[in-house]
Amino acid sequence: MKDKIRYIQVHSGWVLHEETMGGDQVIIDAARTCSGIVRAEAIVESMDLESNKTLIERLLKGKIKHNTPIEHCVFRFRVRCPIFVARQWLRHRIGTFNERSLRRCSAKTDYFTPGVPRLSEEKLNNGIEIYEGAMQEGLASYEYLIEKCGWPKEIARGVVGTAIYTEFLWTVNAWSLINWLTKRLDKAAQYEHREYAQAILRIFETEVPILAGAFKKYILDNDED
Amino acid sequence: MKDKIRYIQVHSGWVLHEETMGGDQVIIDAARTCSGIVRAEAIVESMDLESNKTLIERLLKGKIKHNTPIEHCVFRFRVRCPIFVARQWLRHRIGTFNERSLRRCSAKTDYFTPGVPRLSEEKLNNGIEIYEGAMQEGLASYEYLIEKCGWPKEIARGVVGTAIYTEFLWTVNAWSLINWLTKRLDKAAQYEHREYAQAILRIFETEVPILAGAFKKYILDNDED
Amino acid sequence: MKDKIRYIQVHSGWVLHEETMGGDQVIIDAARTCSGIVRAEAIVESMDLESNKTLIERLLKGKIKHNTPIEHCVFRFRVRCPIFVARQWLRHRIGTFNERSLRRCSAKTDYFTPGVPRLSEEKLNNGIEIYEGAMQEGLASYEYLIEKCGWPKEIARGVVGTAIYTEFLWTVNAWSLINWLTKRLDKAAQYEHREYAQAILRIFETEVPILAGAFKKYILDNDED
Amino acid sequence: MKDKIRYIQVHSGWVLHEETMGGDQVIIDAARTCSGIVRAEAIVESMDLESNKTLIERLLKGKIKHNTPIEHCVFRFRVRCPIFVARQWLRHRIGTFNERSLRRCSAKTDYFTPGVPRLSEEKLNNGIEIYEGAMQEGLASYEYLIEKCGWPKEIARGVVGTAIYTEFLWTVNAWSLINWLTKRLDKAAQYEHREYAQAILRIFETEVPILAGAFKKYILDNDED
Repeated sequence: MKDKIRYIQVHSGWVLHEETMGGDQVIIDAARTCSGIVRAEAIVESMDLESNKTLIERLLKGKIKHNTPIEHCVFRFRVRCPIFVARQWLRHRIGTFNERSLRRCSAKTDYFTPGVPRLSEEKLNNGIEIYEGAMQEGLASYEYLIEKCGWPKEIARGVVGTAIYTEFLWTVNAWSLINWLTKRLDKAAQYEHREYAQAILRIFETEVPILAGAFKKYILDNDED
Repeated sequence: MKDKIRYIQVHSGWVLHEETMGGDQVIIDAARTCSGIVRAEAIVESMDLESNKTLIERLLKGKIKHNTPIEHCVFRFRVRCPIFVARQWLRHRIGTFNERSLRRCSAKTDYFTPGVPRLSEEKLNNGIEIYEGAMQEGLASYEYLIEKCGWPKEIARGVVGTAIYTEFLWTVNAWSLINWLTKRLDKAAQYEHREYAQAILRIFETEVPILAGAFKKYILDNDED
Repeated sequence: MKDKIRYIQVHSGWVLHEETMGGDQVIIDAARTCSGIVRAEAIVESMDLESNKTLIERLLKGKIKHNTPIEHCVFRFRVRCPIFVARQWLRHRIGTFNERSLRRCSAKTDYFTPGVPRLSEEKLNNGIEIYEGAMQEGLASYEYLIEKCGWPKEIARGVVGTAIYTEFLWTVNAWSLINWLTKRLDKAAQYEHREYAQAILRIFETEVPILAGAFKKYILDNDED
Repeated sequence: MKDKIRYIQVHSGWVLHEETMGGDQVIIDAARTCSGIVRAEAIVESMDLESNKTLIERLLKGKIKHNTPIEHCVFRFRVRCPIFVARQWLRHRIGTFNERSLRRCSAKTDYFTPGVPRLSEEKLNNGIEIYEGAMQEGLASYEYLIEKCGWPKEIARGVVGTAIYTEFLWTVNAWSLINWLTKRLDKAAQYEHREYAQAILRIFETEVPILAGAFKKYILDNDED
């Protein structure tokens, strides 16, 4: 079994794993509830890895996904990412988010900056000064409006670009996480969001290795397109 | 009964009511389902407004809200508002949103500008040029990065402030709408968001007058704080 | 286009379609919102059926399902079915149910009776008298406990079998309905539930023919198992 | 702080607490995220119980409930109760249930029997034989249909009364649990369901004492009716 991962840096942001509830074993217990086999320690001990793997794979391999047993496993992450990534992320409705609010807190002055290979060296060189200039201009105007003009933060923030970082706490069950991973690991997803999905996937694999294996085998690599 | 309202302008944005499913009568039918009185035309006609009002008020007046009958009434709105308002709005999870994406479309060049009385005349005068300058700088940089430097829209948008307008389609049931109205009409809500909530409330009152009356009487004006 | 269907009998129960909000056109509008093409009557009229069909199929055909545009279409049904079917049905969480309560109303005295070909003629003949006897005994005991012994309905109902009929109102969006149809039309679903799913599918096909066609083509008949 | 409770018997059923994720401290962290105060061990240690209590009470005391911080706390219970109680319980949609299915498993032969003081001694004596007789008749018919007539379990179960016991696994966040407790502890709730709610409340109080205290003070005892 792989070592647990607590923290992964993504650009100037990061993903922090705080807690997992349930796990592969609880998913197996839940799946067995419907057939009346309540978990008994003796039985569990004698069950080999292979039969557990088969059971969890059966939840995900068919056309019909048996999602409820998977939902008994829940994760809590803390994330730091650009607002334009958070805007997509918080669209996922099954789960709970608490984001740092710019109505009350001051915007931090650091922001996402793209690099190579996301952009070719040439494109990056052509635009980077304009990009940095615009971000800094936005942040400077924001501070000026608050400090010199007495504007409330919640209006002044309107001039700051969505490349600045935000932070949020995310509690999400494993089934909802699988939906998010499927959408955000896809080649059609925005590159910057995909990097966060790859980080979360690495944590997912160490927390629930059997479920993560079944997810990769039957959903992620199932290229029916 | 008040005239139906289809469109309300809010600053340079707007709220457009597209469709309502169900209504006061369906809520009453649903509430009666549990006591087995299926809607019969004859009965309905003889029922006076007063008894219907009493029934709907009973759903909302106690400590325990009887939300499911209310959920059978569903609305669809189209909204244009600043991104900083949409960021709060789309946090409401019970409902469906489809927002115009800046990954593919170009950002529109118009943005929210505060006025009096939101800001005092003095504050406004002190800051408005900085504000407008920062917004225009952001939009100009965005266009330059795309057109002159070949940056993808989805990265270039990071420099544009959240005061620019976005558009979305919102399907929401009446109970979820009541939760949103309660939070967004509150004095603690951001002024700009409250203006949208006031516009939606006006439409809500013409679409489901009995429910809206009960909402105002037992939830909105129930100042237990 | 097929004629609208309002009512379909299923055994001694039925499915009644009450209202549809949105439809194929609204799903198309929603899908286009993200690319900024707001619905204009002129454009819509010139759009042929084929391009609309292609757009809706694109929502369902890949590994990643684009569910939010589909959710803007909402249905309301009234259903009469045995409690053992309702027990499975009401497990579907995305949607609103209001069921007739046996805490307050008296249980109706009719119940589901299986027939051929659900059971072979022989099995049916062997068991039907026992079955009918047990159901009638349960209902008679229920009435005796209430009328002769003064027991509250909410306890007395404990002796009545789950083959008796119940009624409920169901508001559900098209995406959640697709999930329900997929699970309940499957060969692993209980036969009696599948008959209700087949009835709802027939209504679904007349209400949103393009979406229903895409559902059948890309989800229902996609036998990857 | 009270001792943790793992198991509470309710009639012939029970409630078993399996796991809690988060807790009072995580709720406080989540509430502070929006004001940018990330949890630092040093700060947390110096924070006295009183200030934490005040913060959590602020989430629940006003007209507007701040539910998202509370949702980061999640519980998993295993429950054994009569089907007529489970029928109401599983209606709560925000959470995950896995129930033992009578499509595959045999019905257990034990069932709920009411006693004094739920019924007066006289009423109980008048009806108990009829009640017991009907339940046993139903169970005997069920077994006969399966064993002697070859009927499938999923149809034969239709003759068994809803007083028989079922079992389920329930994962639910603290906010959804508060909604359930509010409705099921209410005097209008069915007596038998209320007994389960009282058992869960006792566990809730030992798992998240500060939140449970605020719930009792501001929601449960807030008799505005």
